[in-house]
Amino acid sequence: SIKPAHLEDMCDRPKNTDVRLRLPAVCFIWQTAMIILFGIFIRYDSESSPYWVEYKRDHNISSDAENDFYFRYPSFQDVHVMIFVGFGFLMTFLKRYSFGAVGFNFLIAAFGIQWALLMQGWFHSLDYSDGKIKIGVENLINADFCVASCLIAYGAVLGKVSPVQLMVLTLFGITLFAVEEYIILELLHARDAGGSMVIHTFGAYYGLSISWMLYRRNLDQSSRLQGSVYHSDVFAMIGTLFLWMFWPSFNSAIANHGDGQHRAAINTYLALASTVLTAMAISSLFQKHGKLDMVHIQNSTLAGGVAVGTAAEFMLMPYGSLIVGFCCGIISTMGYIYLSPFMEKHLKIQDTCGIHNLHAMPGVIGGIVGAITAAAATEPVYGSEGLIKTFGFEDHFEHRTPAEQGGYQAAGMCVALCFGIGGGIIVGCILRLPIWGDPADDNCFNDEVYWEVPEDEESSPQVLYYNSHMHNKDM
Amino acid sequence: SIKPAHLEDMCDRPKNTDVRLRLPAVCFIWQTAMIILFGIFIRYDSESSPYWVEYKRDHNISSDAENDFYFRYPSFQDVHVMIFVGFGFLMTFLKRYSFGAVGFNFLIAAFGIQWALLMQGWFHSLDYSDGKIKIGVENLINADFCVASCLIAYGAVLGKVSPVQLMVLTLFGITLFAVEEYIILELLHARDAGGSMVIHTFGAYYGLSISWMLYRRNLDQSSRLQGSVYHSDVFAMIGTLFLWMFWPSFNSAIANHGDGQHRAAINTYLALASTVLTAMAISSLFQKHGKLDMVHIQNSTLAGGVAVGTAAEFMLMPYGSLIVGFCCGIISTMGYIYLSPFMEKHLKIQDTCGIHNLHAMPGVIGGIVGAITAAAATEPVYGSEGLIKTFGFEDHFEHRTPAEQGGYQAAGMCVALCFGIGGGIIVGCILRLPIWGDPADDNCFNDEVYWEVPEDEESSPQVLYYNSHMHNKDM
Amino acid sequence: SIKPAHLEDMCDRPKNTDVRLRLPAVCFIWQTAMIILFGIFIRYDSESSPYWVEYKRDHNISSDAENDFYFRYPSFQDVHVMIFVGFGFLMTFLKRYSFGAVGFNFLIAAFGIQWALLMQGWFHSLDYSDGKIKIGVENLINADFCVASCLIAYGAVLGKVSPVQLMVLTLFGITLFAVEEYIILELLHARDAGGSMVIHTFGAYYGLSISWMLYRRNLDQSSRLQGSVYHSDVFAMIGTLFLWMFWPSFNSAIANHGDGQHRAAINTYLALASTVLTAMAISSLFQKHGKLDMVHIQNSTLAGGVAVGTAAEFMLMPYGSLIVGFCCGIISTMGYIYLSPFMEKHLKIQDTCGIHNLHAMPGVIGGIVGAITAAAATEPVYGSEGLIKTFGFEDHFEHRTPAEQGGYQAAGMCVALCFGIGGGIIVGCILRLPIWGDPADDNCFNDEVYWEVPEDEESSPQVLYYNSHMHNKDM
Repeated sequence: SIKPAHLEDMCDRPKNTDVRLRLPAVCFIWQTAMIILFGIFIRYDSESSPYWVEYKRDHNISSDAENDFYFRYPSFQDVHVMIFVGFGFLMTFLKRYSFGAVGFNFLIAAFGIQWALLMQGWFHSLDYSDGKIKIGVENLINADFCVASCLIAYGAVLGKVSPVQLMVLTLFGITLFAVEEYIILELLHARDAGGSMVIHTFGAYYGLSISWMLYRRNLDQSSRLQGSVYHSDVFAMIGTLFLWMFWPSFNSAIANHGDGQHRAAINTYLALASTVLTAMAISSLFQKHGKLDMVHIQNSTLAGGVAVGTAAEFMLMPYGSLIVGFCCGIISTMGYIYLSPFMEKHLKIQDTCGIHNLHAMPGVIGGIVGAITAAAATEPVYGSEGLIKTFGFEDHFEHRTPAEQGGYQAAGMCVALCFGIGGGIIVGCILRLPIWGDPADDNCFNDEVYWEVPEDEESSPQVLYYNSHMHNKDM
Repeated sequence: SIKPAHLEDMCDRPKNTDVRLRLPAVCFIWQTAMIILFGIFIRYDSESSPYWVEYKRDHNISSDAENDFYFRYPSFQDVHVMIFVGFGFLMTFLKRYSFGAVGFNFLIAAFGIQWALLMQGWFHSLDYSDGKIKIGVENLINADFCVASCLIAYGAVLGKVSPVQLMVLTLFGITLFAVEEYIILELLHARDAGGSMVIHTFGAYYGLSISWMLYRRNLDQSSRLQGSVYHSDVFAMIGTLFLWMFWPSFNSAIANHGDGQHRAAINTYLALASTVLTAMAISSLFQKHGKLDMVHIQNSTLAGGVAVGTAAEFMLMPYGSLIVGFCCGIISTMGYIYLSPFMEKHLKIQDTCGIHNLHAMPGVIGGIVGAITAAAATEPVYGSEGLIKTFGFEDHFEHRTPAEQGGYQAAGMCVALCFGIGGGIIVGCILRLPIWGDPADDNCFNDEVYWEVPEDEESSPQVLYYNSHMHNKDM
Repeated sequence: SIKPAHLEDMCDRPKNTDVRLRLPAVCFIWQTAMIILFGIFIRYDSESSPYWVEYKRDHNISSDAENDFYFRYPSFQDVHVMIFVGFGFLMTFLKRYSFGAVGFNFLIAAFGIQWALLMQGWFHSLDYSDGKIKIGVENLINADFCVASCLIAYGAVLGKVSPVQLMVLTLFGITLFAVEEYIILELLHARDAGGSMVIHTFGAYYGLSISWMLYRRNLDQSSRLQGSVYHSDVFAMIGTLFLWMFWPSFNSAIANHGDGQHRAAINTYLALASTVLTAMAISSLFQKHGKLDMVHIQNSTLAGGVAVGTAAEFMLMPYGSLIVGFCCGIISTMGYIYLSPFMEKHLKIQDTCGIHNLHAMPGVIGGIVGAITAAAATEPVYGSEGLIKTFGFEDHFEHRTPAEQGGYQAAGMCVALCFGIGGGIIVGCILRLPIWGDPADDNCFNDEVYWEVPEDEESSPQVLYYNSHMHNKDM
């Protein structure tokens, strides 16, 4: 009986999770690279440079209120909250991984937005007259969007990777995103204001593929840490609610000024409301004694926002939004109950946060809804000018019909899927290299690995008082 | 001694709190009804439809910045946060009812906003030319407002009702609200930008009447669960602060463009600041050793916002706002100390969150302040055009004087009271039917009844580690 | 061995921390004073009074969208969140001082904004025609800014002072702030949109000087309460993230309409992103096993926002912002590791939250960066009109050159330092008087002193159930 134990020791020898040199090195070098590249490429655009005074006069703009800042900044701030508090806190549900959830989310988002400004800038905002990228508030929103896809991917591997791996995941994720987005939005000229395809489908399949590549056979050795505790579930609700409340801003942030933003906000508001009811209904229906499960409430209530992402600025109609939300609440919750265990067991995809149910399926549905809504667009419904403005049937795309647009939307969906799955497999390969300091199978979902965790003493005041006489340890 | 125990068993036999069929049925059926009614009635208004381009040209509107979306969307998002995070987290203070507080708040608000869009739409936004309700951002805000009244009512019965009862409470609450609001704002032409009367007075008395109808004689059997724990009090402060901070947006969200919104925000900001000081002062003054009580800080600091709701857009003057806040901080905190115990003991009104102190009394004060301020309005103070614009002395109401307006404001107050009390008694009767799955007297304030609650293991890392070798349970 | 204990008893006799009369007295009297002073001095300005309709016509303003409310209100609300949730929750990290952190922050901010409206009003917004202060949304923002400096100071003395002392600290802090701000912004005509000098440098040195004056030799007797627990660290991250996310609004809130606000937001966004990476890198590099320390993540990630405060609206350039953030992340984290212990041991400055690392050093850096950026300004970069508008080279200051402006910026820095240190020493003397009810050395960082703290029972449901049969205590 000594031998097997010995062998087991060999196999399960503690991994080296000390990232003391690797993490700082990655942060310093990459941040320095950002500074250099920003120095070469990034400048203010005409609305954020001091030449705005003259620009205004030259273009006969009567008021500072016409500066894009005032059309988009409130939505930008809402999106910003979704990225850092929304995604960050949504992942705090694990009993002992809240530091990692909020902290690593913070780290990779802060890196990602910089890299996204560059990558998206090269593809979308490059001024060919001087070779510079000109940025304004819309670029900041797009950078946040871009990062969202990587944070979604983080959800699949939460607790099982090192911060260095997350940085690598983000570097490649942003890069792939920018290319995929360029193909979908520019080349195919598909519309995707809320990013059902570009952000959610891509991000989710990217993360799931990585998780598949990083499959851990003995993950049940960490099962003691895989659940939630009472207060961690309440913390996660902070994330859920900020995502839910600000999702109308997410889907409308880069829509057209005026009716575009207005309609996108209304549609998202309605889809989300509808999702809550069906998610709760399914959660209760499939549980013993009809008790609700916080996992469903925290996640599936958001599915409607994902699924109206593409069509939010179209004439989806208020009841259409409700129907989309209705279906997604059901599908997403059922996914948590049936699909996630199936995928873990049979497909070897371990999806910590269930992003397949929250982002992948609703994202694909959103792409399909978008394609159908676009294909069904008619001039009586949109008005002739409205049709052109909503779908951007201008310049090159002057002669495109709504039916054709529907086809291109569907094509965009496929591109997002391919980039997600293909990119995820490649990046997953890279992340399997034994150099990144990831935790052992029996030590996943544990903040102790990468964080100084405070010792939790009994917190009742009496105990604190007695303790103080016995061990006067320093902070 | 066997017999009494036997008898007691009979009386206290566990209630059937399994809502497995009832909750999903209500959610599915009502949500389906919403979809059908939305399909028949709800359309985009001229500012959120693609015809906006043409509308703009026809009405000589020079800029998209004139779209109501940009005047109201930032305030809308603040109000949205108040509804879902503000009210939700304010009620998490109980040691074991945080899931129910945040989760059921989420559920009924998500249902309520849909039903409110319909009910308010029929009364206020019906386009008689085609029989459709045309919605824009202002309707979303009003739907949130309407829901607020039901969430206030929830505060009175927190922990003592089932989610099915809450859905019923909301269905009727929204319906009554829409009628009451129609009478007060349209027929009486009273002004109530921040809803002191329409939202707070109505909602609070509605909830208190229901709580009175649902009086539980043996509620002290749940007293073990009725207090807070340290961290639940901190969670509740999240709710308090988001309500407090965004209240200026609440009171200004549907005020007139320009000076109306501007002034309403300033007045609310000041009233709330003043309330904090007097609430803290009374809390300290009436407690042994001058120790502050979190219940007062969490609730009474908000009373000023309620009480300037009606008058926020009037010329209340900055010092007037401070005075209103000053008084309400005192009254509300005294209410918690003296009135709530009295009401529970002698009036048989069990008010979990003390909404009588936070919404009912300040709401009534707000109505009175509004009536007085309106009656005292003069042309030198408002300017002739300002007077007309502020009070809407146009069309039918062209010849109304400020003094008359004061009278109508007072009449509005009475309508709100009647609807609240009357409606609450009727709905309370309905909720007493033994079919809703409410908890037993000794099991109130307990998330275990309707939620899958995670087992809280000792959370210190050592214990977690040892545990993992003893019971490897699945998530 | 009896004697020393006896002597010790004499020295350490419990201080009287009962603030039952003192706190209410201060609150009531000061709030009453506010009402009187507001009655005499404060009125609505032309954009928040009902005369706006006529003002608009007289000044040929075409739209309500030109009302300053719509340019600044979204930023104001973000700043408001930073003040109450940001600062409040950032300080909840201590295991048993979360009530004091959030609650006293709430109290002094609510008082401070009122006093600030008066003090700043007398210096900046006094209408000499009628002797009244005319307020609008910009005044509300400035009041929040003013309060921020006192909340920063609170960070240094967190857990070691009574609420009465905090009120005194705020009263004098606001007063000093208003004078210092007047000298820097009006007399020297320095620019400081985000308040690196005016808010952060002043506030931090004010607090540090007070903490130095209130040095507690035996503070280690409270060391049992000085650390964090797991969930208190998560609560603190709520504060961190809301500060981090909304800092672009902070630095742009009172910048010039149009490009000024736009550019300030972009620069701040970038500086903060950069800071996160270097703060994490240093935290990992200087810790055993490369484990990250939550103290650094909670605080040092914000340093970049402080340090671009002054230069945010200048042509700092995107890469310039990244560089500033890069350096401050390093310096601030190093400060926590080396400087704070040094200051406590050798300089006798006990700085609970490490405001020297988060506000003082980055604030000074921000002042220097601002001076250099201003001195380096040229017409080709800003455009001739842009240069005038950005630096306000108008009227009296028409002939000032950028180089001179740089000098005045540096002079402003010195004024902020002098007011902070000088004011702090004087106020510290006042706060040393033995009349304020501060806690004893062995009872610091303890909510029990000033708050009714709920008894934390074992919270597992089984225990709760059993408990209920043994002691049925009232709420």
